[in-house]
Amino acid sequence: MIDHRTLRVALLGAGSVGSQVARLLLEQADELEERAGARLELAGIAVRDVDAPRDVDLPRELLTTDAHELIVGSDIVIELMGGMEPARTHILDALQSGADVVTGNKALLATHGAEIFDAADQVGASVSYEAAVAAAIPILRPLKDSLAGDVVTRIFGIVNGTTNYILDRMDREGADLAEVLADAQALGYAEADPTADVEGHDAAQKAAILASLAFHTNVPLESVHCEGISSIGADAIENAKKAGYVIKLLATCERLPAEDGEDAAISVRVYPALINREHPLASVHGGNNAVYVEAAAAGPLMFYGAGAGGVQTASAVLGDVVSAARRHIAGGVGIGESARGDRPIADIGRITTRYQITLDVTDEQGVLATVATILNEGGVSIAALEQTSVETDDGESRARLVIGTHRARERALSETTARLAASSVVERVVTVLRVEGE
Amino acid sequence: MIDHRTLRVALLGAGSVGSQVARLLLEQADELEERAGARLELAGIAVRDVDAPRDVDLPRELLTTDAHELIVGSDIVIELMGGMEPARTHILDALQSGADVVTGNKALLATHGAEIFDAADQVGASVSYEAAVAAAIPILRPLKDSLAGDVVTRIFGIVNGTTNYILDRMDREGADLAEVLADAQALGYAEADPTADVEGHDAAQKAAILASLAFHTNVPLESVHCEGISSIGADAIENAKKAGYVIKLLATCERLPAEDGEDAAISVRVYPALINREHPLASVHGGNNAVYVEAAAAGPLMFYGAGAGGVQTASAVLGDVVSAARRHIAGGVGIGESARGDRPIADIGRITTRYQITLDVTDEQGVLATVATILNEGGVSIAALEQTSVETDDGESRARLVIGTHRARERALSETTARLAASSVVERVVTVLRVEGE
Repeated sequence: MIDHRTLRVALLGAGSVGSQVARLLLEQADELEERAGARLELAGIAVRDVDAPRDVDLPRELLTTDAHELIVGSDIVIELMGGMEPARTHILDALQSGADVVTGNKALLATHGAEIFDAADQVGASVSYEAAVAAAIPILRPLKDSLAGDVVTRIFGIVNGTTNYILDRMDREGADLAEVLADAQALGYAEADPTADVEGHDAAQKAAILASLAFHTNVPLESVHCEGISSIGADAIENAKKAGYVIKLLATCERLPAEDGEDAAISVRVYPALINREHPLASVHGGNNAVYVEAAAAGPLMFYGAGAGGVQTASAVLGDVVSAARRHIAGGVGIGESARGDRPIADIGRITTRYQITLDVTDEQGVLATVATILNEGGVSIAALEQTSVETDDGESRARLVIGTHRARERALSETTARLAASSVVERVVTVLRVEGE
Repeated sequence: MIDHRTLRVALLGAGSVGSQVARLLLEQADELEERAGARLELAGIAVRDVDAPRDVDLPRELLTTDAHELIVGSDIVIELMGGMEPARTHILDALQSGADVVTGNKALLATHGAEIFDAADQVGASVSYEAAVAAAIPILRPLKDSLAGDVVTRIFGIVNGTTNYILDRMDREGADLAEVLADAQALGYAEADPTADVEGHDAAQKAAILASLAFHTNVPLESVHCEGISSIGADAIENAKKAGYVIKLLATCERLPAEDGEDAAISVRVYPALINREHPLASVHGGNNAVYVEAAAAGPLMFYGAGAGGVQTASAVLGDVVSAARRHIAGGVGIGESARGDRPIADIGRITTRYQITLDVTDEQGVLATVATILNEGGVSIAALEQTSVETDDGESRARLVIGTHRARERALSETTARLAASSVVERVVTVLRVEGE
């Protein structure tokens, strides 16, 4: 151990993840040295306010408000400030000065990833970001390294713990979204402004990162189709359950083959989807995350674990730090991210799945025939149908149809749904949910 | 792509995995070049018999019986011959000549790992072996890299597909082992001589490899406590089910803290254990594998996928080949495996779990009191007890006790079991099973 080098590590940010990273770097310095083959010296921690209260007691002398000075001369820079600026500038400065960068900033990577990876390639430095997707779960490194000799065909990810917690409780308790969300906020599972989680924006950022790595291509955040869970009520959960499904907010990344005169493309999308209750993803409960990966040779794989938490996420950050340290002492440059192509990204209209359509219809003869005809004319074939009676808010009784379809193109399906909505026998299109994982 | 180097790849063995590796190296040469940053040229395939029939049509001109000549001058050597010799000699030769080695040979690594890793360290070459444990599932690289900054405390692995297939069918169908085993052999899930799988030897090799990596220490195969599933009957499965458990053959690797005057140690063991039906491992069905990892910071993680199969295992081999290629062109040496210590390995008597003890007892008054007294005197505390009537082979009726215990030391438990067996009220100790995953 005598000839181990010392590497200067700069930490930017001391929030819930950053403070745990600092603690572990200090407490486990000897173990980390053994793993890394180099002493990892925490040179300083850049914070906005040195006197702010923190989860972990950090040595006062390590705290600084001058991030730039800390970065210069560091071998590894850990960015855990979050947000766009000044995080982006600090990362570019760090790379320019030859440091390897570790970050958990999914929003930044999903937005400015290409710029950052190019900057890293120009100087032969590395940017790693295991913590950006699914917290502690090792998923990015397996995609990048372990599956490097395989062809990933599809990914389904439960990558947002807050919405999984909400949907799981709705599924178990029959509760409504508003009720569970309020509870989740009280318990700290959901933020005061839950928009980023509930509307799927957080999952969309992670989907963009997963698809980029899995398909070796640039995936701009704008190209990710994104629907949140705010339209999912207790009814939808109940209908799913009756048909043998559970509703999960899924980040789906899929290779679409060339067909019908269209080129091969990839599809990246986030929406609440029906998953068969026997599927391994169906048993991912509470705030946990899981990523289900289908590869041509490996077949299906699943990676499961905690989807959030300061110390859990710190584990992923430190894994990246140790790898960066090993790379730093081994010398030489690794293969960068710019080996990425620009594959065409398909519009949501191009995907093919099965659907569950729930309609409130007038309670009169011939309705079923009308609905079936519209579906048939739209090229949407019925696989299962259940008719029940529901009571409306104003006390009237109405017929409800829950229709399971065979596989259909989204484009055909949405045109057909529009025709159903316009039909005189249809009072309301209650939900249209896609079935995934088949 | 113009300045990509070409790396010579030698393949030793063209069995079910080797032939798939050869096929993918040839068919996906362009994709692999992009991933690796170097052209991977399959220089040759060493086989015992050039004319033997194979799963995949391989170019005749690549086949050779002279492994040694093929190895000399190769940059990467893939060893998929299996067995001890000549695999061991070929790997040592390859390392000596400066090649990186990729192997899936778990028996060899569990037996001669230390020698091979030392040889690699001396020349700064790498040995990777993702395919040796849980086939296609990326588990070794996550342990080595992603969790490098964390402390793995415990691993439970379903790492043998054959026994999982057998136990799963027994659990679903209430069938007996002999019956399911015969079926598994007919279907190709089990070999003609199933000893290595059924007696746990295959799982023990994988446990030794997992524990070595997770705890950064040498784990000789002889130190792995190993029990197979041959004693598990339909009765045991049924008793487990009644108590809310399922029986799985588990490879368990655990850090034991210093206590009662004994130093901290690790425990590595394979046996059929009871797992709560709500545990993620309980829903691993058929021939699938899964490894459940508990780490101090990351919390629980699970890695799931196919546990066998030629093309699935080839995916893991190619992931290692691409990584070796990247390392090869980056230059420099990585951190080797010899950063391993020699942690003390505990005897099975030292572990602490809960147990389920099934006894046939005489059907007379006071039996329960006698059994309870023996358990109490042995320091084994009863958590649950169920008494039923069973009919013996000779038509007599007998009382059966299924006793769930609180946590107890294995040493105390086995002494107590011996006293129970010797007691006049106990006809037979039917099974003693450990409960894991709690």
